Amino acid sequence: MSDAPSTASQTAGRRVSYAALHRFTTIAFERAGLSETDAKTGADVLATTDAWGIFTHGTKSVRGYLRRLKAGGLRATGRPHLVAEGPAWAIVDGDSALGMVTSVLAMQTAIAKARGCGVAYVGVRNSCHFGAAGYYAWLAAREGLIGLSMANDTPSVAAPGSRAGITGSNPISYAVPAGRHPPLLLDMSTATVAGGKVYAARSRGERIPDTWLLGADGRPTTDPSGYPDVGALQPAAGHKGYGIALLIEALGGILSGAAFTWRVGTWMWDDGTRPTHHGAAFLAIDTNAIMPAAEFARRMEALVDEIHAAPRAEGVKRLYVPGEMEWERHGRAMQEGIQLPPDVLASLQEAAKMTGLDLAELTG
Amino acid sequence: MSDAPSTASQTAGRRVSYAALHRFTTIAFERAGLSETDAKTGADVLATTDAWGIFTHGTKSVRGYLRRLKAGGLRATGRPHLVAEGPAWAIVDGDSALGMVTSVLAMQTAIAKARGCGVAYVGVRNSCHFGAAGYYAWLAAREGLIGLSMANDTPSVAAPGSRAGITGSNPISYAVPAGRHPPLLLDMSTATVAGGKVYAARSRGERIPDTWLLGADGRPTTDPSGYPDVGALQPAAGHKGYGIALLIEALGGILSGAAFTWRVGTWMWDDGTRPTHHGAAFLAIDTNAIMPAAEFARRMEALVDEIHAAPRAEGVKRLYVPGEMEWERHGRAMQEGIQLPPDVLASLQEAAKMTGLDLAELTG
Repeated sequence: MSDAPSTASQTAGRRVSYAALHRFTTIAFERAGLSETDAKTGADVLATTDAWGIFTHGTKSVRGYLRRLKAGGLRATGRPHLVAEGPAWAIVDGDSALGMVTSVLAMQTAIAKARGCGVAYVGVRNSCHFGAAGYYAWLAAREGLIGLSMANDTPSVAAPGSRAGITGSNPISYAVPAGRHPPLLLDMSTATVAGGKVYAARSRGERIPDTWLLGADGRPTTDPSGYPDVGALQPAAGHKGYGIALLIEALGGILSGAAFTWRVGTWMWDDGTRPTHHGAAFLAIDTNAIMPAAEFARRMEALVDEIHAAPRAEGVKRLYVPGEMEWERHGRAMQEGIQLPPDVLASLQEAAKMTGLDLAELTG
Repeated sequence: MSDAPSTASQTAGRRVSYAALHRFTTIAFERAGLSETDAKTGADVLATTDAWGIFTHGTKSVRGYLRRLKAGGLRATGRPHLVAEGPAWAIVDGDSALGMVTSVLAMQTAIAKARGCGVAYVGVRNSCHFGAAGYYAWLAAREGLIGLSMANDTPSVAAPGSRAGITGSNPISYAVPAGRHPPLLLDMSTATVAGGKVYAARSRGERIPDTWLLGADGRPTTDPSGYPDVGALQPAAGHKGYGIALLIEALGGILSGAAFTWRVGTWMWDDGTRPTHHGAAFLAIDTNAIMPAAEFARRMEALVDEIHAAPRAEGVKRLYVPGEMEWERHGRAMQEGIQLPPDVLASLQEAAKMTGLDLAELTG
């Protein structure tokens, strides 16, 4: 976001209720031509992501999706549908609909098939950026299943020894129901950090740690100003992050029939008239088919309780399990509203302009 | 290995044919009471691992398995068997048999079920150390399927902020058939490095990088001499490696009905009379059910070819895909023999003593 914030309250961010943010997002998508159902699905994903405090992947992206919806690269009336299926698998063609709409259908399909077979895989083609991978994994956990979700993206992350991006920052997420605890929820980029964090630092004019990015010469840099035109993200843990990114490519890009690596478009920067052809993959495992629900819950609770009680390094107040910070932020957000950072507010302001909406009125 | 090598040739390592190493391992396991079939299965896994050049997880471990087989914690005549199953899942009870025997059965079960349903999950309980996770993933890829394998282990890896081990160095592996190329094969610890590498450095009296281990005070250390009694490995990429380790715990330890975290025994150091109750999980995805084999192969070949042709950083001769180095070593090993390092030879010498075998005669 290079736009200067227009009010003091935006500079400091602003607190907005989940309901208001959801309403604004829904109406914005409806004005772009989406059905009420699809618009609400998009709002569910993006407002929940903000409530988790993952502002790089929440409603900040609405503006970019609106741009593609207007240009036609995203089809407002696209109808994601199954093109092939078996007992425990399916392939969904996204028909260039909003990535959230396609991804929710895909995970719901995986959940339904896992309930019959124990586990299911759903591959997705002709999709677009799907936001935070964690939302779809959580859809499964909310229903008592283990969920995994992952997606490919246009190359932005180096392989060990490469000079430029080889894989996308390919996110992978899982969620596991944990009895009386909130579900374990990991949502990670296979890059050292998500590209969104580099964008955010660039927007704020900040330097970045030298473990995030390679410059044009293929060496680590602390200057994000050229990204994404120049440079490549560094893979998390070197060959390990690179290796997982290629697994995501195989499951989400190759086996799904989607575009892969250099064929995937940039949802944020590319010509908005063309589909990006992102791929994704969703897995669900029905723990209830395999182990009595109470036993699974009891064992997961023991795991979490024991981690909480484990010895801590000096000065460390708590040990966390994956997702715990996000669920605590989510709880506060639902009680007290979501404190939207200035860059998100500025982006929403743009989205309001594009759709003739009054952000202050809708979220005031 | 604290034993001093007894000959000059051992100090320098020694070249041994795959067939000879396989024969020695098979006979050693047979002398410990395993059936010929089970002994050969163990030898398949461990000699292949050495042929890949992963000497920390190959036949070096035979001595430790023999110790447990003799003490009874591993049951030479244990019979791994399915205790529950559905269309696309099963749970295998290892009956404290050699981990390789149980794990091969589990992956074979996953492959068979995936051929019917498209994808399958098999959880394993009452197993032990299974060696290199990659072997089982490759079993699936050899049959044209995508394979994943993972296992839990006794805590040795810190969580962010913890003072001691919270998870095992929980390995995860995948293999993906790649047409005319060898299968993609990633086998990674969720620690910065596998504990075996710390043991190896300790055996050689070497220091280690400060990103591998925390000392008793919870701070990074370069001294491996106290490990594993003192210190904890550092998780790969911090919360990411920790998060993946907990997914492995959920799929391999919790859902399988195995022991998890502190309940898992140390196969190498614990009382040999007691089972370690390791858990594991195996997934197979039948790409042929989902996409025509030729199309999947063509797409994977394009992925690999394009990575090979991508721009390299200065001074870098090649870009590799996961497993490529291992397959090249494997090719050389099958042609020229396996150059066993001194610590492996010394361990095999001990294994020979324990079973009344003559290592030199069997591998000469």
